[in-house]
Amino acid sequence: MRIQIINGPNLNLLGKREPTIYGNQGFESYLDHLRDAYPDVEINYYQSNIEGEMINKIHEVGFSYDGIILNAGAYTHTSVALLDAIKAVETPVVEVHISNVHQREAFRHKSMISAGCKGVICGFGLNSYRLALEGFIRP
Amino acid sequence: MRIQIINGPNLNLLGKREPTIYGNQGFESYLDHLRDAYPDVEINYYQSNIEGEMINKIHEVGFSYDGIILNAGAYTHTSVALLDAIKAVETPVVEVHISNVHQREAFRHKSMISAGCKGVICGFGLNSYRLALEGFIRP
Amino acid sequence: MRIQIINGPNLNLLGKREPTIYGNQGFESYLDHLRDAYPDVEINYYQSNIEGEMINKIHEVGFSYDGIILNAGAYTHTSVALLDAIKAVETPVVEVHISNVHQREAFRHKSMISAGCKGVICGFGLNSYRLALEGFIRP
Amino acid sequence: MRIQIINGPNLNLLGKREPTIYGNQGFESYLDHLRDAYPDVEINYYQSNIEGEMINKIHEVGFSYDGIILNAGAYTHTSVALLDAIKAVETPVVEVHISNVHQREAFRHKSMISAGCKGVICGFGLNSYRLALEGFIRP
Amino acid sequence: MRIQIINGPNLNLLGKREPTIYGNQGFESYLDHLRDAYPDVEINYYQSNIEGEMINKIHEVGFSYDGIILNAGAYTHTSVALLDAIKAVETPVVEVHISNVHQREAFRHKSMISAGCKGVICGFGLNSYRLALEGFIRP
Amino acid sequence: MRIQIINGPNLNLLGKREPTIYGNQGFESYLDHLRDAYPDVEINYYQSNIEGEMINKIHEVGFSYDGIILNAGAYTHTSVALLDAIKAVETPVVEVHISNVHQREAFRHKSMISAGCKGVICGFGLNSYRLALEGFIRP
Amino acid sequence: MRIQIINGPNLNLLGKREPTIYGNQGFESYLDHLRDAYPDVEINYYQSNIEGEMINKIHEVGFSYDGIILNAGAYTHTSVALLDAIKAVETPVVEVHISNVHQREAFRHKSMISAGCKGVICGFGLNSYRLALEGFIRP
Amino acid sequence: MRIQIINGPNLNLLGKREPTIYGNQGFESYLDHLRDAYPDVEINYYQSNIEGEMINKIHEVGFSYDGIILNAGAYTHTSVALLDAIKAVETPVVEVHISNVHQREAFRHKSMISAGCKGVICGFGLNSYRLALEGFIRP
Amino acid sequence: MRIQIINGPNLNLLGKREPTIYGNQGFESYLDHLRDAYPDVEINYYQSNIEGEMINKIHEVGFSYDGIILNAGAYTHTSVALLDAIKAVETPVVEVHISNVHQREAFRHKSMISAGCKGVICGFGLNSYRLALEGFIRP
Amino acid sequence: MRIQIINGPNLNLLGKREPTIYGNQGFESYLDHLRDAYPDVEINYYQSNIEGEMINKIHEVGFSYDGIILNAGAYTHTSVALLDAIKAVETPVVEVHISNVHQREAFRHKSMISAGCKGVICGFGLNSYRLALEGFIRP
Amino acid sequence: MRIQIINGPNLNLLGKREPTIYGNQGFESYLDHLRDAYPDVEINYYQSNIEGEMINKIHEVGFSYDGIILNAGAYTHTSVALLDAIKAVETPVVEVHISNVHQREAFRHKSMISAGCKGVICGFGLNSYRLALEGFIRP
Amino acid sequence: MRIQIINGPNLNLLGKREPTIYGNQGFESYLDHLRDAYPDVEINYYQSNIEGEMINKIHEVGFSYDGIILNAGAYTHTSVALLDAIKAVETPVVEVHISNVHQREAFRHKSMISAGCKGVICGFGLNSYRLALEGFIRP
Repeated sequence: MRIQIINGPNLNLLGKREPTIYGNQGFESYLDHLRDAYPDVEINYYQSNIEGEMINKIHEVGFSYDGIILNAGAYTHTSVALLDAIKAVETPVVEVHISNVHQREAFRHKSMISAGCKGVICGFGLNSYRLALEGFIRP
Repeated sequence: MRIQIINGPNLNLLGKREPTIYGNQGFESYLDHLRDAYPDVEINYYQSNIEGEMINKIHEVGFSYDGIILNAGAYTHTSVALLDAIKAVETPVVEVHISNVHQREAFRHKSMISAGCKGVICGFGLNSYRLALEGFIRP
Repeated sequence: MRIQIINGPNLNLLGKREPTIYGNQGFESYLDHLRDAYPDVEINYYQSNIEGEMINKIHEVGFSYDGIILNAGAYTHTSVALLDAIKAVETPVVEVHISNVHQREAFRHKSMISAGCKGVICGFGLNSYRLALEGFIRP
Repeated sequence: MRIQIINGPNLNLLGKREPTIYGNQGFESYLDHLRDAYPDVEINYYQSNIEGEMINKIHEVGFSYDGIILNAGAYTHTSVALLDAIKAVETPVVEVHISNVHQREAFRHKSMISAGCKGVICGFGLNSYRLALEGFIRP
Repeated sequence: MRIQIINGPNLNLLGKREPTIYGNQGFESYLDHLRDAYPDVEINYYQSNIEGEMINKIHEVGFSYDGIILNAGAYTHTSVALLDAIKAVETPVVEVHISNVHQREAFRHKSMISAGCKGVICGFGLNSYRLALEGFIRP
Repeated sequence: MRIQIINGPNLNLLGKREPTIYGNQGFESYLDHLRDAYPDVEINYYQSNIEGEMINKIHEVGFSYDGIILNAGAYTHTSVALLDAIKAVETPVVEVHISNVHQREAFRHKSMISAGCKGVICGFGLNSYRLALEGFIRP
Repeated sequence: MRIQIINGPNLNLLGKREPTIYGNQGFESYLDHLRDAYPDVEINYYQSNIEGEMINKIHEVGFSYDGIILNAGAYTHTSVALLDAIKAVETPVVEVHISNVHQREAFRHKSMISAGCKGVICGFGLNSYRLALEGFIRP
Repeated sequence: MRIQIINGPNLNLLGKREPTIYGNQGFESYLDHLRDAYPDVEINYYQSNIEGEMINKIHEVGFSYDGIILNAGAYTHTSVALLDAIKAVETPVVEVHISNVHQREAFRHKSMISAGCKGVICGFGLNSYRLALEGFIRP
Repeated sequence: MRIQIINGPNLNLLGKREPTIYGNQGFESYLDHLRDAYPDVEINYYQSNIEGEMINKIHEVGFSYDGIILNAGAYTHTSVALLDAIKAVETPVVEVHISNVHQREAFRHKSMISAGCKGVICGFGLNSYRLALEGFIRP
Repeated sequence: MRIQIINGPNLNLLGKREPTIYGNQGFESYLDHLRDAYPDVEINYYQSNIEGEMINKIHEVGFSYDGIILNAGAYTHTSVALLDAIKAVETPVVEVHISNVHQREAFRHKSMISAGCKGVICGFGLNSYRLALEGFIRP
Repeated sequence: MRIQIINGPNLNLLGKREPTIYGNQGFESYLDHLRDAYPDVEINYYQSNIEGEMINKIHEVGFSYDGIILNAGAYTHTSVALLDAIKAVETPVVEVHISNVHQREAFRHKSMISAGCKGVICGFGLNSYRLALEGFIRP
Repeated sequence: MRIQIINGPNLNLLGKREPTIYGNQGFESYLDHLRDAYPDVEINYYQSNIEGEMINKIHEVGFSYDGIILNAGAYTHTSVALLDAIKAVETPVVEVHISNVHQREAFRHKSMISAGCKGVICGFGLNSYRLALEGFIRP
């Protein structure tokens, strides 16, 4: 089984940004932990701050992988182009968020991309990624 | 570990309602499957079509259980009272939906209760309940 | 032919509430009149002020009766749960209102449940129920 | 008893337009059926695609007839002028629609003319006209 | 000096419609009074319930008359086509209303045509027409 | 003089819910204090989390009591049915809130029921109930 | 006959402000012209940039004068207090504007005070005042 | 104990304005009554139709008095400046209204100042002021 | 191949209206040019200022012609009835506009009829008609 | 004559994405067809999923080419930056869409970029590009 | 060079209001500092809580001074009258705010007066005034 | 002191775009002027049309520089991702605009990024950058 994780804008700062709040753990170290826990799954990782590069990656893996776990960050709330990319490919996409976006500013309550995804998981911290993985492995 | 599942209005019809679409499996039979898979967790189940009875149940378990998995059905989109109940108790609540509500009518895109919950999971079919359970067991 | 009439909140006060406006006739006495006029139809009657109990009743009769005449009262304008109940059962539902709701406050102009019903009749006083009955008998 | 039926824009195409959906029956043949069923009622019929001509007809019969059955078609949703005409005359008007407009596009959920009418009936197919007639005959 | 008065939908019923409110005076008899008071002005009068015929009349006189006094009735609130007609001709147009439209329903507070007119006068009863005439005669 | 206090959803948790914020005093102990202060007034108390049961209680006392003090909790912001119940009975109703709802989330700024009540009091803590009582005793 | 003209904010700059557009004529010189034309009418004039002083003046003359001509300037679009003042007095008020406000920014299309006035006149330049005067003299 | 009552625009007309509705009692005579009933409280009174003068008064007493009872009249619905003044001072402010504003026009349902006040009381006639006083005396 | 061009309100003034802007060429002379350029196509032309007459024409040709080129003028933005007519017939309709409507007032940005048309062309001057014709000839 | 075609996000998937719907023809093969049909026109083609790269290309050709045909895909509905780029260059831009966007989701009905373009063409399939080309060649 | 600083409502409380937050420095002492730093500029200062008096001051200096620095406080968000005053005078006006208004309540995000000003500066504390001064001195 | 200037989309065209309006000066030549005027400040400059590259640059300098001056161009009005980037770094950011955006189209009145910035400066032409620099140097 092959799964692609795609992280969007500002998620490269995890571990560096406000460490007293978010901790010192960057996403890469969490990724090691995840790969250890699921040795039979090939987990690839990609991060970009550029909306169009995220679309490129979705196109690249979207006809051959078994699943995409997508944290589109702030583009979640504005990007029709990501929605179209998700709908255009064959691989199912699960939308994840680290925080519970519904507890934040009103403009974060609306996701433009949910309608194209298989499902949505938010609010479980980095654990949201593992639950998404579970959703692909044992549907 | 003690977990309470609470299902809201019309979810008692699962298995009976449009069986060609939803299948013949009622929620109780799924529950058996879930209890088998997680023998160390005490999983209690409650369903009501009455908003206030759901609040009563949240009050009843909300100071002693380890988690509540709540599928508030249609009350998700209208009930401030459920939001207040969730905020008033100590037990964390995870909001689940069987379908991806963001692919349905616009009035189902807005949840009144998400802001009070620990997290939200939607779109994985009955599997949404298992992922919520995972979220409590291995945070 | 079996028809279920379901009346929602505050409709139990008909005949008692503002009698100079609404007259002294309660719904039960109108019901007698209706049953006399349609002796071949089994007309059952249920009233509740509790949204969830109305849903229970729709579930109870919604797979065996020939028609439901539903005056959801104030829940008409707010209840997604009643809409879901109407859509979940097999029996067709006709929405009725005694007054012409479009001549009243703006929040009464929008019905949440019309989209799930077979048809809507409003403004004919208690006669709205008889017209709904006609709609079932001679489609 | 004299009743005027007024049909608005595009209703002249009934029977011709999408016959697999609407059937081959034009409104005139339904009218014959209606007149047969109610031999004691004088039922006049008028159709126009022009908003102002519908107003002219309402003026013409609105001080002498016993009732007007009005299917304003698409003008239902936009015409303040028809609302004013309905309010200006003495004859009561019943608004009818063949389909359940609440199951269609959002701009069809709002009627500009309901507030001036005695009552509204929609969703019963051509039978909506008969129910309106019943509403006049046995109030 | 040549002035064209154009009255829109339902204004033909003045004097007949709700006489206890609007009085028994039709517009024609008021017109006689106006012509007597302003013998040096040629005052022409046209009424139609059809939006497009009102446009035709504006086109007909709009390149040769000195002024148009337009009571567009209910089309005031909905007609972009009348606005375009007013802007397309050379003759200045004054918008009048018999009642103070701002004391009526909210949808009557917005005029689509005011932006194309020289000025607006409302609330003076039939006297609104005379004031508009004054506006043309002694600018 | 007979007064009915009706408390809505989640208000049964007073004294238990977040005691460092709300204190340890439940509503019943406050009630004792109130009855002591006003020995000549019969003060009855009812609490329910079920909207329809609150309506039932309003019906039950609404034709014989001298006043109803209603804290509808979260139903304040969504319930047309409670508004109708208040309007249907003869006993005047005063709406109270413990907190100043205008300092909280935007959806708590709008009350559906105020239009049916005699008056509104909010922001005085439990003292809001006493002020409402004063409003009935010395109008 | 006694008439009070009240001008609101920034209207004291007429004749000084953008003279190539508005001309060199201040309001006082226009007033002389108006008094000459209507020698039998006592025309008093007041201008203030302060909303509350305009209210004071309305109170002062509003129980004894025959008419108030009010150009509330920018307060037209925001002042509920002026609306209340107009409704509280007995003297009828006519709202005037020099320019056609409907040709300007959208926030100038809405008047808060029209609903309390007898009528509205706009777009005739300073002549708007004379037409308002006519409206009082020959109703 | 020192309390300042501040009344806003048009409240100086109480007793003079529509006496068949509001009665012949001006606010000053009510004030005498209030001072008699609470001899131990120093009750000062100020009225102005000018928003900025109301702010001046709030500043003047807002660091030394025990309470301010504010009926901001129409400025209630539009004044951010009053909200800021209330928040800037130390004395708690109670917002009062004589009528139940929620039964009037929609633009009166929204208060700009409630969020800065300790509490709100409306609908009890002049008695609203006494209840506010009670709220300060026996909190 | 038979094509019907239908022009709506005010388009009869082309060549006469604001000639310094729109030029002196009326639509008829452009039509001659178009027929010369496409000699193998039968191009019929109809213009009306009356919405309902445009509907009549669509009905008349809509079951036999190969294409309709529709410039609905101002009715574009308001007419649900034209949308229904377009949907009711079999002939495909192309919506055209001479100007780029998106550079004009906001109410011209929304077309009610686009959803029923095959395609939309705007902004190419009279050339928009030729491009629409191309769209029918060489699809 | 030099024309630049710019395609935006996801349009690189044409021919691969949902082939039963969109067919097997990619954009490049259509381009060959177009170049054959217009041998005298230099047609350059650029595609990018990155909004800023599309802006770069507009800048690059926008001061020397004769026309730009722009299908901005999903950025059509969100990009102010593309609008600014179109306005900043000298070359006229024609907006095209393959599908009739007005028949799709509501958020696709609004184009942010139309106001800066010379014209808009949508709904003609790949033929939309040819019509745009015609618009440049024979204006 | 002559510059007028105008401060609006509640800004007279600087230094007194919440000193732990805003510090003990009143605006006058800051003014001394500013005058010392710019000895060649005549800096006049005016503060009022009354909207109309601010307009008076703008009129007074607006045809002779070189610049106006305006902190309109809460009137920023509601005053069309100030906008008109700014537009009516010849002296350019710079809008300043001490805090970053975009970090506060939503109703403070919209300025009614920005459109009339030369520029806007906010968020630099009292330093916002100095930056505005710089904007006049070295444009 | 180290300051980073970041310019967003289309700002690379300054000096080339509409030179009769914007002049012939490109941003680089203005930069030379700025560096000469502030020799003690290290001023770095970056421009990109790609939203994500602007985010990359903010990340790169945002933990070591003393200030960022950001003209986000059109992304100002749409980019939640830039807002998140600004909030994630430690360096304070000042938002600048060359023109007064409040005098332009309505969609330019709203900034998505202001809430994350230290302050905002707009309307001073290129001088806006210098004022921002002043804001960093002499706070």
